Amino acid sequence: MEKLFPFIEYRGRKLFVEDVDVQAIAKRIGTPVYVYSKAAFSYWFNEFDSAFNDVEHLTAFAVKSCSNIAILRLLAEMGAGADTVSAGEIFRAINAGIAPEKIVFAGVGKRKDEMEYALSHGILMFNVESRQELETLNKVAEKLRKRARIAIRVNPDVDPKTHPYISTGLRTSKFGIDYDEAFDVYMKAKEMEWVEPIGIHFHIGSQILDVSPFEEASAKVADLVKALRDKGLDIEYFDAGGGLGINYHPEENPPSSSSLAERIVPFVKELDCKLILEPGRRISGNSGFLLTEVLYIKRKEGKIFYIVDAAMNDCMRPSLYDAYHHIVPAEKKENIEIVDVVGPVCETGDILAKERELGKCEQGDILAVLSAGAYGFSMSSNYNSRVRPAEILVSGSKFEVIRERETFGSLIEGEKIV
Amino acid sequence: MEKLFPFIEYRGRKLFVEDVDVQAIAKRIGTPVYVYSKAAFSYWFNEFDSAFNDVEHLTAFAVKSCSNIAILRLLAEMGAGADTVSAGEIFRAINAGIAPEKIVFAGVGKRKDEMEYALSHGILMFNVESRQELETLNKVAEKLRKRARIAIRVNPDVDPKTHPYISTGLRTSKFGIDYDEAFDVYMKAKEMEWVEPIGIHFHIGSQILDVSPFEEASAKVADLVKALRDKGLDIEYFDAGGGLGINYHPEENPPSSSSLAERIVPFVKELDCKLILEPGRRISGNSGFLLTEVLYIKRKEGKIFYIVDAAMNDCMRPSLYDAYHHIVPAEKKENIEIVDVVGPVCETGDILAKERELGKCEQGDILAVLSAGAYGFSMSSNYNSRVRPAEILVSGSKFEVIRERETFGSLIEGEKIV
Repeated sequence: MEKLFPFIEYRGRKLFVEDVDVQAIAKRIGTPVYVYSKAAFSYWFNEFDSAFNDVEHLTAFAVKSCSNIAILRLLAEMGAGADTVSAGEIFRAINAGIAPEKIVFAGVGKRKDEMEYALSHGILMFNVESRQELETLNKVAEKLRKRARIAIRVNPDVDPKTHPYISTGLRTSKFGIDYDEAFDVYMKAKEMEWVEPIGIHFHIGSQILDVSPFEEASAKVADLVKALRDKGLDIEYFDAGGGLGINYHPEENPPSSSSLAERIVPFVKELDCKLILEPGRRISGNSGFLLTEVLYIKRKEGKIFYIVDAAMNDCMRPSLYDAYHHIVPAEKKENIEIVDVVGPVCETGDILAKERELGKCEQGDILAVLSAGAYGFSMSSNYNSRVRPAEILVSGSKFEVIRERETFGSLIEGEKIV
Repeated sequence: MEKLFPFIEYRGRKLFVEDVDVQAIAKRIGTPVYVYSKAAFSYWFNEFDSAFNDVEHLTAFAVKSCSNIAILRLLAEMGAGADTVSAGEIFRAINAGIAPEKIVFAGVGKRKDEMEYALSHGILMFNVESRQELETLNKVAEKLRKRARIAIRVNPDVDPKTHPYISTGLRTSKFGIDYDEAFDVYMKAKEMEWVEPIGIHFHIGSQILDVSPFEEASAKVADLVKALRDKGLDIEYFDAGGGLGINYHPEENPPSSSSLAERIVPFVKELDCKLILEPGRRISGNSGFLLTEVLYIKRKEGKIFYIVDAAMNDCMRPSLYDAYHHIVPAEKKENIEIVDVVGPVCETGDILAKERELGKCEQGDILAVLSAGAYGFSMSSNYNSRVRPAEILVSGSKFEVIRERETFGSLIEGEKIV
């Protein structure tokens, strides 16, 4: 037995997820296919959630990382709330059975119809990102005669040391309201009839492997809470956004959720706030992977390509962020060779792995692109008119389809020759 | 009147596409919305196609650039064929009324079921990219008792001087068969019972602004055709792939299609081949644009953000390639300011334009992201559970929906809670 990630391991020469041989999935469902493990979701949810048991808290799963309603239902049953960034995500969360009072709505560009949707469903709170948004929300709430509970997203200006595309808490980013300005915006909000400030929010980025910026941000934001309370504002929720990182290689160790809790919980205790957390990738990332078949092997002078049936449209991270995903064969191979694993899309950038040591494969072999539970399917597209993969949920020795593979018909849904 | 691109111009202070005020589209259909001009498609198709009138030729539109079936129908009526890279694209082309004998099928990763689909529809030819693919195709054709007409995609090893992600003809890329090896592969194909070599293919990249590599590639490939004919192979089709570039700024001038023709046609004449061309962006790129509304304006110290309702999920090129798209307001503004135009998606990389001079806007203003007819909608996704935009076709003073905006329901189509 050789463990790669919890519930993902080799038994003998064969790759298993829980008690399922992944080749059985590929055979029955076809490839490419996203595979999730119920036990892994449970493991990662608990690893995270239990770390914060010292304080009253809500683990609001970042829906954008993995949006399938069957996955959201699983998490709802474990007690998760939802961190959402669009009305579509709120729709998903509610459909999956996540209670509206466990849903927070963030994002720099909330449209009025999205605000109406969220208000009419009675979500917990809006994380407001600008003065104009605050004014717009006040108007929308007035129109609906429903007060909008809000937090201001404060930009703590700390460097999370992650990929520039997913670091969000720097002063020069589009996100949040600058720390120095936030107090003033809260005072504005206090005077507004249709918004009710009940929380404070920050978010410093994604895939964060050094937890110290969370302490720095929490300390800054806690000071602001005290100042706001002095002015009579009842800040009840402390929403600590920013995603704890995962290991994209089985042999690496990511920080534990407890080490994150140590950075945040003391501030929350002192303030006697309710804590909201927004993990996404941390829970979903290593709970899923992508199975793909080797279609062709191409040997050029000094270069070997494994052409697989998954492409950048199915799994965007390697092309978009130059991200590393560990790739392993469904059945262990002898002899290592150095290969590029590439997809069928007509772009040179359609690469899943570059110059990677991999056991020597043949046509028809199955590979698993690991750590693809987060920002995998949720970023997928129909580029090159490729149908999006099926999604499968494994539980014990069984697996079920939680999203059908798309069809040619679904590609042109809504199109009309005029 | 101030012309930006053919059929896209300011009349007075207002942006028009053909005889339609773009604000009327935004008002009736909402935003974000992709807008295409029938007249522009016709203009660009003819600018390209007529340049090759000296020889028998087929302008096979690269479906991946803009895949809507209403657009493909338009092009079919002008006489276009289709350059496809998946069975899904073949399905689209056939649905739009493009005759199968005008369809070529390229791509490094053709699955067997895709080969069967293409064979059973009687497409013109397969552009074969590897030895293994050739063998697989021979077997699939045998199974169907239908001979597969093929070209070998020869890698001419020329540098197209474009973005590394979209340059495809270098020796180190995953595409094609190396020039030195191609002869041998043709000899193999000649001996196979179920494949019939009828053409030769090359493709050197996309958005190419210097046409000289086409001459270099054509010369190399023409030599190979002669050598193959000497061996009794009847190479009838000369498929010159690689996309002629467009101007992404109204004040730039891209090379004319005639200048491209001058580089290729002499070789084709000498060989007395039928020429196949594969323009995509050249025809669709400046025939469409994306309309988006300014949701919020955020002024930070030394930084202004226009937060619009279109995001990286709607228009991927700026995030993926750091691509430039010219952005103009639907109604001309006084006073210029330097802004970042960003979308609502929760990533710092969700940027449409960086530090761009733009007329000073207010909340609710409409902006046009120009040159988005190619690789715009076709690369779009549902990331952040955002519904994909509507697509509109303008003709004269009228416009019609050619793809409905998606709904929340369409987001979870095929998903199932288990």
